[in-house]
Amino acid sequence: MIDLYSANTFNGQRVSIMLEEVGLDYSVHRVNLAKGEQRQPEFLRLNPSGRIPVLVDHDSGNSDPFILTQSVAILQYLAEKTGHLLPASLTERAKVYEWMHFYAVDIGSVIFSAFYLQHLCSDKQPQAAEELRNRVHDLYRYFDQQLAEQEFLAGSSYSIADITALPAALTQEQKLTDYQNLTRWLKQLKLRPAVQRGMLIPEGE
Amino acid sequence: MIDLYSANTFNGQRVSIMLEEVGLDYSVHRVNLAKGEQRQPEFLRLNPSGRIPVLVDHDSGNSDPFILTQSVAILQYLAEKTGHLLPASLTERAKVYEWMHFYAVDIGSVIFSAFYLQHLCSDKQPQAAEELRNRVHDLYRYFDQQLAEQEFLAGSSYSIADITALPAALTQEQKLTDYQNLTRWLKQLKLRPAVQRGMLIPEGE
Repeated sequence: MIDLYSANTFNGQRVSIMLEEVGLDYSVHRVNLAKGEQRQPEFLRLNPSGRIPVLVDHDSGNSDPFILTQSVAILQYLAEKTGHLLPASLTERAKVYEWMHFYAVDIGSVIFSAFYLQHLCSDKQPQAAEELRNRVHDLYRYFDQQLAEQEFLAGSSYSIADITALPAALTQEQKLTDYQNLTRWLKQLKLRPAVQRGMLIPEGE
Repeated sequence: MIDLYSANTFNGQRVSIMLEEVGLDYSVHRVNLAKGEQRQPEFLRLNPSGRIPVLVDHDSGNSDPFILTQSVAILQYLAEKTGHLLPASLTERAKVYEWMHFYAVDIGSVIFSAFYLQHLCSDKQPQAAEELRNRVHDLYRYFDQQLAEQEFLAGSSYSIADITALPAALTQEQKLTDYQNLTRWLKQLKLRPAVQRGMLIPEGE
């Protein structure tokens, strides 16, 4: 019914956690990034920009399989499709968008830019990567302040905003111990079976 | 009815273009970034992380004024509130999310990281900033390919995905002339009166 093309990265884990939470049937296809499978023609037919995750929904209501990329867009699509993890009220939903974008744009993307400067670009820039990682660490302060007042990132309900932030924050938990409320939130969410399963899907790098 | 706290940056322009497009009444309050007004207590009460744009909707249906930050979240809120610039079908809407996030996460945020490394961080890193700008320039290729097949970024209708990408792409139009389809799209969209007005709101830096 759904095919997920993914790898065990923060962006991939967001989607596998979401699929586990909403309980849709899906088949996972591991894309081996180290072997460059994301640049093979058969993968580029799914996503010309050569990046995971890709969701293919064979039950979207369209006649053709529906192909979707971009982890945050996939979370929102699955939330709207299933009616889970996104509030019904317009303003509550907008707060989910706010925290989802705060994380994806100001933290997730910056973590990737740091990785790019440290490991991927032709002229490696480790010092600049460190500047960006320090910036990310500072920004987590606002997530910590929010979680002092709210149980979850966007209010009193678990939502796709939490799932957006979870994989990177869980992986870096040991570096975030000075943020007490964020630590409380991580300890609470990692007890969820869907989070535990999703963090390990697909197996391998 | 709506108060917009903003400055003439890409993130600010997204929201003023959107407000001009949907035709809601609003008052604009310029936040002078050069003078550090975004770090003054009265602004931090609106957005603790000290960044523009901030939208305050006095007609949200809530008893208190509804405060929202993050430009992409504001676009989506205004689209849902007014029923404009977001398709009714689930899969068409999801394609809007895909292109909106592709731009905001993989281009918009990286442009800001480059600016941060060049101008804002304590130990300036101009060479790393150049690496990131080159990466952004390469990624525009996928937007150009999409615009070879589609009139607008997410399909046949103008949407909040186009508005997400417009301010930075318009400002850098002279650097993007090797992308013919992107150039066609920019020439077409900059004829819209709402885009012309929005790019100049608020006046000043």
